[in-house]
Amino acid sequence: MPQGSNASRRSESSRRAILAATEELCRESGYRRLTIEAIAARAGVGKTTIYRWWPSKGAVVLELLDEAAVVGTAPPDTGDLAADLRSLLTEVIELSTPQDSAPGVGLVAEALQDPELGRELRERLIEPRIATFKQRLRRAQDTGELSPDADLDVALDLLYGPLYHRLALHLGMPDRAHLDALITHVLRALTPPPEHPPTP
Amino acid sequence: MPQGSNASRRSESSRRAILAATEELCRESGYRRLTIEAIAARAGVGKTTIYRWWPSKGAVVLELLDEAAVVGTAPPDTGDLAADLRSLLTEVIELSTPQDSAPGVGLVAEALQDPELGRELRERLIEPRIATFKQRLRRAQDTGELSPDADLDVALDLLYGPLYHRLALHLGMPDRAHLDALITHVLRALTPPPEHPPTP
Repeated sequence: MPQGSNASRRSESSRRAILAATEELCRESGYRRLTIEAIAARAGVGKTTIYRWWPSKGAVVLELLDEAAVVGTAPPDTGDLAADLRSLLTEVIELSTPQDSAPGVGLVAEALQDPELGRELRERLIEPRIATFKQRLRRAQDTGELSPDADLDVALDLLYGPLYHRLALHLGMPDRAHLDALITHVLRALTPPPEHPPTP
Repeated sequence: MPQGSNASRRSESSRRAILAATEELCRESGYRRLTIEAIAARAGVGKTTIYRWWPSKGAVVLELLDEAAVVGTAPPDTGDLAADLRSLLTEVIELSTPQDSAPGVGLVAEALQDPELGRELRERLIEPRIATFKQRLRRAQDTGELSPDADLDVALDLLYGPLYHRLALHLGMPDRAHLDALITHVLRALTPPPEHPPTP
């Protein structure tokens, strides 16, 4: 939309009101009970305004999370790989807590069964995060913190997997000690076994 | 229900028709479009018959999966831990394929936002599987295939996590090579690092 006109300012203020209403309603009653009607009423806009910009409540929540994302293009880099991995994983844990009313969990649940929303979720939220994660691991490979042979796709699955596993099975998010244990184990997994040195 | 009477035989035949209809409809149109009305029509029973036994479509699907479960109380034990882990994980992969119409994926998605269904899913389907998994790992600890210090909760998260991660983010289930890489990495992670021998 063109910037600077009165109309575009009104549009931007409606858009922000819609996203704020979506987050409030989700936190109050959970994603499942969220409706476009309730969002419109809370935001003080017409339903048609919402449908002009978004095809579904999932698409609104996706934009909400996209705006709230604190992950930039640069990964955390304190020089301590385990600490930086803990920061990246903690962001996902916070986005998923509490499970019953976190907008992110609602979106993942809806996307599990909606291939189009799943594609958008992957492209807009997930792939940029995967790129940031791999950038940090490649830097660790450059500095020798991580083996140059480490398989970064395996690393991704092993580090983020437990969070989704625990979410799906209602096992509760890992506490700090369990998260640290997971990271320690995965870093060990990514280190080639010393008992098989390359043959000369 | 009492066994053997005509009434109980009719009940059992209705129950089987309902479960079969649920599976067919889910495979045809996906869990999201599944309704109690459609199940009743396909099974040739009244809606009230379904609601007498189950509170929701999620509960019907849970019973369907519970009946179909091939995991018994004894874990696979070929003597090859990696091969047995592959068998256990492959069962979950098969239950989740294809993602858009697998009843198990629909159930997990619904349970993500329904704490009561989540609790039932965990108690009826998940905890028995976790027990079977840990039984196999404890046997591996007894035979020396696995370190006696291996953390079995970490093992659970690292082995099953990737499947749910890939499901949630629509990354596709791991193929055989990636699954084997995951198992190899996790078994390495569970082996204590040789560079820190116990101090005498």
